[in-house]
Amino acid sequence: MTAVNTPVTAELAKFVANTTYDDLPPEVVRETKRSLLNWMGVAIGAAWHESVDILLKLSSEVGGPGQVGVYGRRERVDALEGALINGMSSHIFDFDDTHLRTVIHPSAPIAPAVLSLAEWKGGSAKDVITAFAVGVEACLRIGNSVYPDHYNVGWHITGTTGVFGSAIASSKMLGNDEQAIRYAIGLAAAQPTGIREMFGTMTKPFHPGKAAMDGLRSAMLASWGFTSSEQGIEAKRGFANVLSTKFDPREITGTLGQEWELLKNAYKPYPCGVVIHPVIDAALGLREKGVTSENVESITAHVHPLVQELTSKRTPRTGLEGKFSVFHCVGAAIVEGKVGEHEFSDDHVLNEAIIGVRDKTDIAVTEGMREDECRIEAKLTDGSYVEHYVEFASGSIENPLTDEQLDAKFTDLVTPILGDDHARDLIAILRDFENEPNVKKLVKAATK
Amino acid sequence: MTAVNTPVTAELAKFVANTTYDDLPPEVVRETKRSLLNWMGVAIGAAWHESVDILLKLSSEVGGPGQVGVYGRRERVDALEGALINGMSSHIFDFDDTHLRTVIHPSAPIAPAVLSLAEWKGGSAKDVITAFAVGVEACLRIGNSVYPDHYNVGWHITGTTGVFGSAIASSKMLGNDEQAIRYAIGLAAAQPTGIREMFGTMTKPFHPGKAAMDGLRSAMLASWGFTSSEQGIEAKRGFANVLSTKFDPREITGTLGQEWELLKNAYKPYPCGVVIHPVIDAALGLREKGVTSENVESITAHVHPLVQELTSKRTPRTGLEGKFSVFHCVGAAIVEGKVGEHEFSDDHVLNEAIIGVRDKTDIAVTEGMREDECRIEAKLTDGSYVEHYVEFASGSIENPLTDEQLDAKFTDLVTPILGDDHARDLIAILRDFENEPNVKKLVKAATK
Repeated sequence: MTAVNTPVTAELAKFVANTTYDDLPPEVVRETKRSLLNWMGVAIGAAWHESVDILLKLSSEVGGPGQVGVYGRRERVDALEGALINGMSSHIFDFDDTHLRTVIHPSAPIAPAVLSLAEWKGGSAKDVITAFAVGVEACLRIGNSVYPDHYNVGWHITGTTGVFGSAIASSKMLGNDEQAIRYAIGLAAAQPTGIREMFGTMTKPFHPGKAAMDGLRSAMLASWGFTSSEQGIEAKRGFANVLSTKFDPREITGTLGQEWELLKNAYKPYPCGVVIHPVIDAALGLREKGVTSENVESITAHVHPLVQELTSKRTPRTGLEGKFSVFHCVGAAIVEGKVGEHEFSDDHVLNEAIIGVRDKTDIAVTEGMREDECRIEAKLTDGSYVEHYVEFASGSIENPLTDEQLDAKFTDLVTPILGDDHARDLIAILRDFENEPNVKKLVKAATK
Repeated sequence: MTAVNTPVTAELAKFVANTTYDDLPPEVVRETKRSLLNWMGVAIGAAWHESVDILLKLSSEVGGPGQVGVYGRRERVDALEGALINGMSSHIFDFDDTHLRTVIHPSAPIAPAVLSLAEWKGGSAKDVITAFAVGVEACLRIGNSVYPDHYNVGWHITGTTGVFGSAIASSKMLGNDEQAIRYAIGLAAAQPTGIREMFGTMTKPFHPGKAAMDGLRSAMLASWGFTSSEQGIEAKRGFANVLSTKFDPREITGTLGQEWELLKNAYKPYPCGVVIHPVIDAALGLREKGVTSENVESITAHVHPLVQELTSKRTPRTGLEGKFSVFHCVGAAIVEGKVGEHEFSDDHVLNEAIIGVRDKTDIAVTEGMREDECRIEAKLTDGSYVEHYVEFASGSIENPLTDEQLDAKFTDLVTPILGDDHARDLIAILRDFENEPNVKKLVKAATK
């Protein structure tokens, strides 16, 4: 551990102020666009959740002018409310992107702040990409510097580091100078949102939304000279020392601008806990090899112990319970050939064909099996066996989602809300996003 | 320490839901009115600070309808922005009330939220008093339960406990039921604002303003069914365990409703560090005994070591530096006969008569002298001596500010901003506040 008085806040501010679109490696641009596509899909998919209605009621009572759209809906709200609402919406399904090392979901607190500013104040897609990339990079590196102690003590790291990401990305969109960026970081350091006790309630997805809003407000205030500490991260009574027992500043400044943590961002293929993912991959493999609800006699999945510990609900009764039932997931994969949000509806967990397969499925905790690995075997009614082996689950670093898989996930989320045409338009716009002169087409396609 | 699973969140919610105005002891009503008077004075006094202008700029860009007034000014802003702006304004001078045991400044995060709701939605002065009293009581008790560890690690306890106070007081104003109050407490637990690194910047007074706004928003969301943990304070990964190494739930629930921590709220007579206060009292005593800038030859104050350590700036050049100069304070007391914000202007620290006395003043660190005690002696040009002894500084628990002193402090703060007549009206309104059917007269007198 280097001295904690490494001026990381100043070095981050310098990096943010000096990085231009042309400094971004092509793979960073590509991953940013994939992150934005994935993020937009989960934001739109959850846009009609009850918690979004409540935030819109708040906005209708105390909110400002309709500066930005609420993705997946018709309402327009002020830029700060937009960051809050779109940010919360995107984390409701727990289906957004994940930086696997820190379990930070970086897009939820950052993308909505950047897009709010771009829609409200103007800004090209290249501006958006650059701001998002430096914001995510800062957020993930700050996360690395305090992980795992900061998370283990109980902070919801997506909110507490996300407010830095939002403040920094918003500062970049606003063209703030280095001092104003340091001030915005200071303001962010003073406003951590999110403790893990809130998991399982509406307050959990509220965390990244709130971080998006607070970060955006911080950047605006700082741009007008609102003062703060210029050592908000590393000072004796700054973020890292107050909110974590571990702090390694090298994680923030080492190879900054040369290596990109953003490239380690991953996308979930299925809207449930990541431990079930290799099992779903394996079950889908069985289906491709001809296993159906009619011809199957029994299924056994060889799994890591966490699968049993976290997801062995035998008879789920609601969609939410289905997410904690590896048996339901195998049933849905065999019967439906996909496992999206749709397959976690209450109807689907009570579907007879799925229940039939579910009740024929067993898991065997197998020594040496990694968390992202699974071997599955099915015995068929004719006495034969079918096997499938998944070395790395899809959505892992070793086996990232392909563009086609991302598109399919996106379409599955967006079509029920906005229809096929919007889903197609959005995919096309984001595929070549860097060529858009502004975000007007994007927002039009993302709203009703 | 009792088991940490004492359901303090639920017990607090029950207390808040069930307490009515008639349950408040007369001395609690009296101290609430004194707190509100003191708070209104410091809010109005700082209303034209540059940082307030910046928040108003934010509000003009993204804020909602003009639902509430900004005290000391003409602008109207939405209820959430009003809580933020009036809350920040009241902490700018560091001259607001103090719960001496925890150094919490309870009114700053709570009063503006309650008054925002009363102005916007309606509500009698009795509603305001009741909501303020239960909010402050909860805030101070939560502070007691985690103090001093929580403060020592670096949290600005006024913000981190103030958000609970605001959420609870706002819930009371809204008439929320117990479950909604538990949810609001959960939302507050997830949104701590304020770390001590920010002291000396605009972000410090921003903390209680932000806490006021976040608490108010939490109460509104919870009133519409936005869910959160119902054990936000005491859960394993709740507020107390994540943000403090010490937690004693008895401090929250013991004698709740029978003994009132609010009665230990104190008011500063002078807008500078509390360690100088007994010295200023003593110097004012000398003046009353006939010591003037013309007849004095030398002054010696016998003081606690902290006075030397924290406030021995010999030749302050700005008003702010004057606050850290016990010598300037003695000079101002002898020359002006009072030490208010006015006496800490840049002009005053360069005033020749004050400098004359300042440079004839010395301090002697004296063994056994308590922090709130001072003995002072002046040698006059005719060779005689005058002495004055202060056993307990004014504004201490043992020697609280009298109503007359509070009125004088208030007048000194408000007159330069709104004029004599407004100051008089406000004092009269708050003296018999419980009889006001609403806050219209109060707000009219508190704004331009």
